[in-house]
Amino acid sequence: MPAALNNPDLHSWIDIPASSHFPIQNLPFGVFETPERGSRLGIAIGDYVLDLYALSQRGFFDDLDLGPREPKVFRRRSLNGFIALGRTAWRAVRQRASELLRHDNPALRDDETMRACLVRQRDVQMLRPVKPANYTDFYSSLEHAANVGRLFRDPANPLPPNWRHMPIGYHGRASSIVVSGTDIRRPNGQRKAPDAAAPSFGPSQQLDFELEMAFITGRNTELDHPIPIQHAEEAIFGLVLFNDWSARDLQNWEYTPLGPFLGKSFASSISPWVVTLDALEPFRVAGPVQEPEPLLYLRTVDQHHFDINLEVALQTVDGAATTIARSNFRHLYWSMAQQLAHQTSNGCNLQVGDLYASGTISGPTPESLGSLLELTLGGTYPLLLPNGTEHGFLRDGDTVTMCAYAEKNGVRIGFGEVTGTVLGSL
Amino acid sequence: MPAALNNPDLHSWIDIPASSHFPIQNLPFGVFETPERGSRLGIAIGDYVLDLYALSQRGFFDDLDLGPREPKVFRRRSLNGFIALGRTAWRAVRQRASELLRHDNPALRDDETMRACLVRQRDVQMLRPVKPANYTDFYSSLEHAANVGRLFRDPANPLPPNWRHMPIGYHGRASSIVVSGTDIRRPNGQRKAPDAAAPSFGPSQQLDFELEMAFITGRNTELDHPIPIQHAEEAIFGLVLFNDWSARDLQNWEYTPLGPFLGKSFASSISPWVVTLDALEPFRVAGPVQEPEPLLYLRTVDQHHFDINLEVALQTVDGAATTIARSNFRHLYWSMAQQLAHQTSNGCNLQVGDLYASGTISGPTPESLGSLLELTLGGTYPLLLPNGTEHGFLRDGDTVTMCAYAEKNGVRIGFGEVTGTVLGSL
Repeated sequence: MPAALNNPDLHSWIDIPASSHFPIQNLPFGVFETPERGSRLGIAIGDYVLDLYALSQRGFFDDLDLGPREPKVFRRRSLNGFIALGRTAWRAVRQRASELLRHDNPALRDDETMRACLVRQRDVQMLRPVKPANYTDFYSSLEHAANVGRLFRDPANPLPPNWRHMPIGYHGRASSIVVSGTDIRRPNGQRKAPDAAAPSFGPSQQLDFELEMAFITGRNTELDHPIPIQHAEEAIFGLVLFNDWSARDLQNWEYTPLGPFLGKSFASSISPWVVTLDALEPFRVAGPVQEPEPLLYLRTVDQHHFDINLEVALQTVDGAATTIARSNFRHLYWSMAQQLAHQTSNGCNLQVGDLYASGTISGPTPESLGSLLELTLGGTYPLLLPNGTEHGFLRDGDTVTMCAYAEKNGVRIGFGEVTGTVLGSL
Repeated sequence: MPAALNNPDLHSWIDIPASSHFPIQNLPFGVFETPERGSRLGIAIGDYVLDLYALSQRGFFDDLDLGPREPKVFRRRSLNGFIALGRTAWRAVRQRASELLRHDNPALRDDETMRACLVRQRDVQMLRPVKPANYTDFYSSLEHAANVGRLFRDPANPLPPNWRHMPIGYHGRASSIVVSGTDIRRPNGQRKAPDAAAPSFGPSQQLDFELEMAFITGRNTELDHPIPIQHAEEAIFGLVLFNDWSARDLQNWEYTPLGPFLGKSFASSISPWVVTLDALEPFRVAGPVQEPEPLLYLRTVDQHHFDINLEVALQTVDGAATTIARSNFRHLYWSMAQQLAHQTSNGCNLQVGDLYASGTISGPTPESLGSLLELTLGGTYPLLLPNGTEHGFLRDGDTVTMCAYAEKNGVRIGFGEVTGTVLGSL
């Protein structure tokens, strides 16, 4: 069924700019708010949002059997209730949206009152799409792990011994995950320079971003029910862009032996539109050769990586936005399927709305590094910006904007952007 | 106001055994279920549960102004909704329970129909008291950190360099926190012996418990609003016993550099009754001298430690229950107030129902060690049980039961117990 929605020949009666991230083949889910409508679930289409609550109220979902919780799930402040309806429901709603938006469907196109089911994106406030239940941050880019290892551990042997055997990760803080556009306050914290006699408390001097993507789970599972790797993707609702803001000085002082904590938990930003795996289906690619071969529970033969272009732009207070990194989601060594199979291999249960972030996605080239830590070699080699100034770690007033899209046969499946501006410390 | 509830001279018209953990001075909150009543909030009193929904329905809270969400909050499957009403509400309900249970109050005592507000504990199923929003595990016992450091790091210098400067901790998995009595499945996972050529996947061979306590927060806070240490305890709803089940072999192979992950996330167990800080007020004690003096944001002059006796009993398939460890919550180096001030010092927000566990609470004597890792020196010196058998890490069929109580002036404020039986791996 879903394959038909990816057909490059599909087009909508809505005029969609060629550069739009949201053609009729994408149809990502999000939560929006306006003073008149309150908070509702929507689907992005071109420069518009399709109001799912309005569609439900007008009877467009009556034949879909979405269960007794419809239409309530469509006027919530998060996607969680809708996600809990299950994959059949997500697919049915997305399919219906595709039908209603097709060039040859007059139901909304030719009916002025029905057109109220569309709102301009510029007229809505996008909310955090999910209330995160649990949040894991993986560390699945070989290049990133090796770059960090060269900086802080053994330059000759930069990968931790376990790294090639499993997708290592850590639990992050779910409460401080915010939606794109939220300002990011520079955190205070303890840090200690290697040559300082004692630690001190104050504003982080090494504030950084991390270019990541994250997937959102669509299913509650029971304890002691690991998800076999061949079924892992069925538990994924969709993907977002993820900026894992990091205070390197706090992190360096605290992370041994229990891992990242306050150096990360002040904020992480996610993009407002959740792109489904169904929409990304045409962009499957093989991952890198894994050597040594993973243990059986992590072994796959199918293609579980995705070709998604990633970009990071930095805008300083006195300069224009400059692209400072270009990477690709396909650079990851460990796939989402492997991450989820590993996460549940010990019997750990999943919840609807869990977030699983990839870790910084760095590629093999100097321009494909996904953090300032790597781009500036720990701050020692500042970036040279087009206006001639040098730039190390983030400064107050800097805006970091990440964007992502996959493209093939003239169809661009985009994620929009995740952006945030750094505010001075309290 | 709350002080009067702690008066050792208070007694109830209910007959309460002297050894009970739940005298009228305690009145902890929990969630219970029966086939007839469904799931409801309750307060423990002796061998009974006081049914808060029944009290609410009979008008006993009518003058308390608990807001529009009463009585709904009293028939939920977690305390979260009630906790969200705020400290004034918790105190008002506990005060009213104390009044109704006093020896000289006839309202329930002398009215057969009103007595339906009480249920025997043996006739109810206790549920997990809170739906954990976020879960942090600290590492705040100096003895535990030093014991672990001697085993795995540098015996001459066992504490990590940051340890005496801040209460280090990590984010744990909230989804797999279960209530006392839930069986614990031995997890599978990757582990690698130091002399093995490669890791393998299979059942943990080093399953352990960790004796901890945890506090539950009672307030949602905004990002960028750190909680000053002198106000930290106001954000605490109450405390539970906490068994942080640990698979040492999985943990050892995975924890560098990102900290504990699957070695912990298969399950943690909590006790069903949440004891309020108000009930523990008489048991405040000074903590250990902290050297070096903590940085300003972690500095306190008041007494923020609590004198609470802790015990761990082990029952094997073929033996009687044996107490294998006795410790005390006062042994912790870092207080709950310091933990919470640290957790929020970077601007991280709190949510109602967050769990903050102490880390293993070991004391200075050989019998006060809070894990088998320490009691058996990494499994190399097995325990000698009374039936003459030796015992290292946990075996299938073992039951671990922890209990805790504070006692003074003939009043015992108890936590009941947290127990769990190990099942064989899948």
